[in-house]
Amino acid sequence: MAGELPESVRIREVGPRDGFQNEPEVIPTGQKVRLIGMLADAGLKRIEVTSFVRPDVIPQLADATEVLAAIEPRAGVTYSVLIPNRKGLENALPHRDSFHEANFFLSASETHNRKNVNRSIEESLKDLKGTIGEASSAGLRCEGVISTSFGCPYEGEVPPQRVFEIARALSGFGCEEVAFGDTTGMANPRQVRGFFERAREELRGVELTAHFHNTRGQGLANVLAALEGGVNSFESSFGELGGCPVPPGATGNIATEDLVSMLEEMGVATGVDLEKLIEASAAAQQALGRPLGAHTLVAGPVDWAPRR
Amino acid sequence: MAGELPESVRIREVGPRDGFQNEPEVIPTGQKVRLIGMLADAGLKRIEVTSFVRPDVIPQLADATEVLAAIEPRAGVTYSVLIPNRKGLENALPHRDSFHEANFFLSASETHNRKNVNRSIEESLKDLKGTIGEASSAGLRCEGVISTSFGCPYEGEVPPQRVFEIARALSGFGCEEVAFGDTTGMANPRQVRGFFERAREELRGVELTAHFHNTRGQGLANVLAALEGGVNSFESSFGELGGCPVPPGATGNIATEDLVSMLEEMGVATGVDLEKLIEASAAAQQALGRPLGAHTLVAGPVDWAPRR
Repeated sequence: MAGELPESVRIREVGPRDGFQNEPEVIPTGQKVRLIGMLADAGLKRIEVTSFVRPDVIPQLADATEVLAAIEPRAGVTYSVLIPNRKGLENALPHRDSFHEANFFLSASETHNRKNVNRSIEESLKDLKGTIGEASSAGLRCEGVISTSFGCPYEGEVPPQRVFEIARALSGFGCEEVAFGDTTGMANPRQVRGFFERAREELRGVELTAHFHNTRGQGLANVLAALEGGVNSFESSFGELGGCPVPPGATGNIATEDLVSMLEEMGVATGVDLEKLIEASAAAQQALGRPLGAHTLVAGPVDWAPRR
Repeated sequence: MAGELPESVRIREVGPRDGFQNEPEVIPTGQKVRLIGMLADAGLKRIEVTSFVRPDVIPQLADATEVLAAIEPRAGVTYSVLIPNRKGLENALPHRDSFHEANFFLSASETHNRKNVNRSIEESLKDLKGTIGEASSAGLRCEGVISTSFGCPYEGEVPPQRVFEIARALSGFGCEEVAFGDTTGMANPRQVRGFFERAREELRGVELTAHFHNTRGQGLANVLAALEGGVNSFESSFGELGGCPVPPGATGNIATEDLVSMLEEMGVATGVDLEKLIEASAAAQQALGRPLGAHTLVAGPVDWAPRR
């Protein structure tokens, strides 16, 4: 295994979008900006900072333009914005100088896509072709995110070939990177390793990113399997914020501090200062007024142990 | 990876000892016996049911003899008992017909062993030689458990050679099986795989068992690494009960339902009926009056998803 593991990985922190969006209370813009600053201070180089969604549907992110205006540009830090549709792109483009990447999404299962965005996969792809093309033309790096890539809570198994087909389409539209989401935590390590070994063959030239949920406690085991399958790009959320709690009460995204702890302990460099990251999660915990689920936030890094 | 994974694994359920011992309230004997019965009904073939500890030190397990008298013998189910010392063995032996296995423990780090049992490793080994010999002579199968096998919260790194040395001693005393405990969740998958690859060379003829904690969320990733390193015997706790919460608030043992979910989804047979196991955890949750931490207890098996 040792020889097969990458020396370093890239991590996209999705908490400020995926996490804050799922909070029952709207987090004040100043708090968001402060936490994003702490994440950048911790060494996270890719941060999804907000989304241009309809403010009446997701009031938690209604301050997207204010967030973009307030976050500090940092050398080497890439800010990305989730773009749900053409209208979202229209609203985002005037603020184009404040971010670098646009992230687009659809589901690999018809039922999930219809429940999520009320259209067929074909309709989604048709729309994405235009919006991704436009974003690319505006000089934005584009990432496509494919939800339910490892299974659908309504349809069950999702054929990998279908997922690769969608990924190829997104790549053709202009996405340099495609993320595969285990939206409701149905993936297992054997499946994940096989999936990415094939994806590397089928999607040459595309950056492949794994986005796991810890719904059944297997999030980091799936990260290990993805590493072994050749993946070196991951998405996660500080504090274990956000994700898709299906069923209600289930945990969502893997926690960035747990991911960083495991990788660094294995000798895989993340560029992240774990203690500073934990400070950011502790600050979020205080701001939200409730304990967050990240294990390493509670336990501390392995090398803290002797001091406790 | 597929070819390297075992077809099936053995799981020892330690919740009725390790879990119940760590509960703030003493669980009534009848509840314990009922839950042990549900675990056996779920297909668990190895169950650690109690410990012969001093009742003034651990009142939670003061009913060891009552539990042994009340649990039903089941074809193919092995009940084991934790024996902390010679006095414990003396108290256990009169009930020898009610259980099959005796489990003995010490730590691989001097500081942890001293804090835990107030003696040096050498003193522990000397005592264990006698007690394990006596238990073997009484026809009991013996398991040795080595705590802090992957790191010590006081001393930091623990040299694998030291752990193997202790394991060889335990094997020499009569232990057919040695379990390696990641007592405070310091292990990482790269370390685990390397450890067990070497252990298989160094400890031929000994059943090697992995006992992981989920302190930093890496429990199941370590299981995957252990599987890849040739291990096919694990210990876990239903509901995520018990373990060593260091620091306070941290989670301990990996949850049996999360372990079973991952393994079965990967095609590795456990012999456990996941739905029945979840019923046992749900019953424990109700008996204890607080939510338990096992992820799959909340989320349900992967194949439940379409129904929700």
